[in-house]
Order: sequence, then C-alpha cells, then structure tokens
Amino acid sequence: MKTKLTIVKVGGNVVNNPEVLSQLLKDFSTLPGYKLLVHGGGKIASEISKSLGINPQMIEGRRVTDAETLKVITMVYGGLINKNIVAELQTLGCNAIGLTGADMNVIPAKKRNPDPIDFGFVGDFDPDDINVEVLASLINQGVNPVMAPLTHDQQGSILNTNADTIASGLAIALSKHFEVTLAYCFEKNGVLRDAEDDSSVIEQINPPIYQSLKAEGIIFDGMIPKLDNAFLAISKGVAKVLITHANQLTALDKKGTTLCAV
Amino acid sequence: MKTKLTIVKVGGNVVNNPEVLSQLLKDFSTLPGYKLLVHGGGKIASEISKSLGINPQMIEGRRVTDAETLKVITMVYGGLINKNIVAELQTLGCNAIGLTGADMNVIPAKKRNPDPIDFGFVGDFDPDDINVEVLASLINQGVNPVMAPLTHDQQGSILNTNADTIASGLAIALSKHFEVTLAYCFEKNGVLRDAEDDSSVIEQINPPIYQSLKAEGIIFDGMIPKLDNAFLAISKGVAKVLITHANQLTALDKKGTTLCAV
Repeated sequence: MKTKLTIVKVGGNVVNNPEVLSQLLKDFSTLPGYKLLVHGGGKIASEISKSLGINPQMIEGRRVTDAETLKVITMVYGGLINKNIVAELQTLGCNAIGLTGADMNVIPAKKRNPDPIDFGFVGDFDPDDINVEVLASLINQGVNPVMAPLTHDQQGSILNTNADTIASGLAIALSKHFEVTLAYCFEKNGVLRDAEDDSSVIEQINPPIYQSLKAEGIIFDGMIPKLDNAFLAISKGVAKVLITHANQLTALDKKGTTLCAV
Repeated sequence: MKTKLTIVKVGGNVVNNPEVLSQLLKDFSTLPGYKLLVHGGGKIASEISKSLGINPQMIEGRRVTDAETLKVITMVYGGLINKNIVAELQTLGCNAIGLTGADMNVIPAKKRNPDPIDFGFVGDFDPDDINVEVLASLINQGVNPVMAPLTHDQQGSILNTNADTIASGLAIALSKHFEVTLAYCFEKNGVLRDAEDDSSVIEQINPPIYQSLKAEGIIFDGMIPKLDNAFLAISKGVAKVLITHANQLTALDKKGTTLCAV
C-alpha cells in the first residue's frame, strides 16, 4: 500500500490576504502525513510591476508575460511569496522547501506556441515529463515541498505556468509513489450551483455531470480549467480530488465541499 | 574515505556581469564530482530598490536591511538571481536546486543584536546549528545546491546574510559528510601583495602570515572577513580553502591562486 500524500493548491486570492494565508499555513502544517503545497501568484506581482513602470500587456483580457514581467514574477513568485511561506511554515514545525519547476528539473516545460496568440514566457508541460524521483525522496525524508507557479524551458528561461495545472501535474506524477489527495483551496466553498449562494455546493461531480453543468452554463470561467485539471488528475491515477474553501483544509472529509469522482 | 565536494562562492561582482557569470556557471558545471554554489547579491537589488523608491539607509558606510529592503533582497537574491542560475545550470546538464537558509531549515540564524548599531534584518548563525542531513542526501543523489545569501530567524522572517559566511558555514557543516574544498571566486587572482598588481598573488597564506600581512596593512577591507571565514573553515575541518579569480575555477590546483593553509 502506498503512503498517503496530500497536495494542497492555494490560489492568488489566498496569497493576497496575509491573515487568510497564515491560517491556511497553520492548517496545512497540522495535516497528518506527507504533504506538498502549490501556491498561485496574487496581486503583489502586478503592484510591483506597476511600481517598476512595467505596463501590463493584455491580449483578449489575458496578461502577456513579456521579458520584464517574467523578471517580476520570477522575483515575486519564486522569491518573495515562496520564501516567506517557507519561513512561516518553519515556525509551525513544518519542514518546508521552496521550489520552482526548474529546481531539480522537476517540471521541464515548453514555451507556449506564439501562434495564434503570443502570451510570451508562458510554459506548458506534459505530466509524463515531470521528474519526481528526488522530490519523492525529499518527501519520504519528511520535507514538505512548496511549489511556485514557475517552470522552465530547459534552455535557460523560467516560464510562467498555471498553478492549478502544476498541482494536477505533480499529483499525477507523484501518484507513482504515493496515494495522492489533491485539494484545490480557494475563496468559495466548492463548485457552486449558484455562484452567488455559498451554500449551493455541488458535493459530488463526475465527468457526465460536469459536461451537463457546463452545457447549462452553471460551470463557467475559471472553474472550467480547474475541473479539467481535476478530472485529468483522477483519470491519471490521483486517488481523490477536492475543491474546497481555504478555511476547510482540516475538514476535507466533511460535507459541504466538492468531491470530484470518476 | 569521504567523497569530495567542491563549494564555490561567487561574489556580487560576478553576478552583476552576465557574461562572466555564464562562463563561471559553464566552468562550475564541468567540475568533477559533487558541488555546491553560493552566490552573493549584486547591484540588481539596489537598482530595483531605487526603482521602487526605497532609499538605502546607510550607517557607517554599511547598508541597513529595513523591512522594505528585506522584501527586495528576498525577491532578487532568492528569486531572480537564484532561479535564473538554476535554470542556466539545468541547460548545462547540471541538476541544480536553488535554496535559501530557510529551506529545509538549513541555516537557522539570529537577527543581529540592534545594539550598538541596528543593521535591521541581518542574520548571523553558528555553523554548528546548520542542518545538513537532507542537504547531504540531495548532494549524494547528484543534485547541486545553489544557495542564496539568505537565512531565517525561525520566527517567520528571512534574514540578509553574508555570502562568504554562508559558504564557510556550509563548508564546515558539510565536512561531516564530505571532504570539502571551498573556493572563493571573485574578480582578483587571489590575495594580492599589491592591490594594484594582479600578478602579486600570495600563493600560500597561513594564520601567522595573515596576522603579519594584516598588521602591515597589506590585507585590508573586505579581504579581512573573507580570510577570517577561510581560516575558520580550515580550523573546523574543511580540507582546502582557495581564493581565486572567477575565471580560474577549472584550474584550482594550478599556481597563481591563493591557498589558505594551517
């Protein structure tokens, strides 16, 4: 039987709020067994970009990672946010290590094709390419990895990469070594039937239900790639995927959260 | 017999020059056996501080790390410089991992006593407190650590820490597991008898010679703490300490470089 590993992904909205983040880290540190945290970016990068006079380039409402923006997110995601989370976890008795996908070549990626839209230094990867041997060895030694949303192109450049996708990719790759539970933690209680009603959590969702909720327009926007990542993870050997509120991390098996099932 | 480990420290002047740094990383990647890199800060942090409107506070000619400056160096040293070095080493077939002293609690430090001079978030540590077990396990798995000049106070704060001191501290601590050569690489050929004459390298220096050169005023300024670190390392079990030009890394055993001896 494989040892259990909980992978927790926290989004930018949690990272933006020091008190919510601190509580999340406290809860994370009390989770039993092996664990790994993936964090998103947050608005600090935009604020620092603005202060440095870097104007955000947007195409179709989405930010472009140009060379200057790449420097900022390498600093902010890989340095400021990541290392402060590590330092805070250390005070909680949680022996953390902060990493990007470049470290130990954990997540080799490819710069996204500039055709039809050039999003700049954005990376995509195949979960099969993830190198988890040394990462698994660290986890087995009781070290808790904290992963920034950065990969690299194997040609010397860091790449901006979606944190949800990193979380599901790592969950898939680490399922070779561990029985993985993947928890997407954000500012809602789960996947909601009514985006305005926090009590309308859909407690179990499977691919057919997902397709029909998507067709009805009940699931939309950012929830679609999150659920695509969730179902990809389940189809590739991840034991359990949950979508839950950041304040529910210590109650993952309770009701009121969304469990993604096959 | 212990396995050999080479610890290379590169200073801020090397980090400041992309071409010199690239060549140094190429040379580092070709060093035989186990290796670890410690890098200094460089002027990028000052440039970014200026752009962000942070005025450097100086006391007696030395920079104070206030809360805002700490954020910048955590970003720049721990993120920008560190992760770009890691990404570049990966292209050279050198499996690097970027770390600070907070990661895996490798270097627990204490904020320097604000009395008599408050330098802010600056950390000092005792080499005996360094936790090298997991670090040694990574090195034994062929992973090459790249260490930023940052430690932590075990109370949630990152601390600015002298890179020479980190290099000697790690060399001392890792001597329990490895036969360590420590090479301080910088922009001079070694310890010079005449600061203006690059060919005046003192090829061997021991504590009595050091004391007399210091008394004569031949060794001064930044070379004093570097040599103090070097002789501390030798007295605590480090096999060999060299002070050499950044472009001499692949010729450490040749003449024209400074060997510190007991």
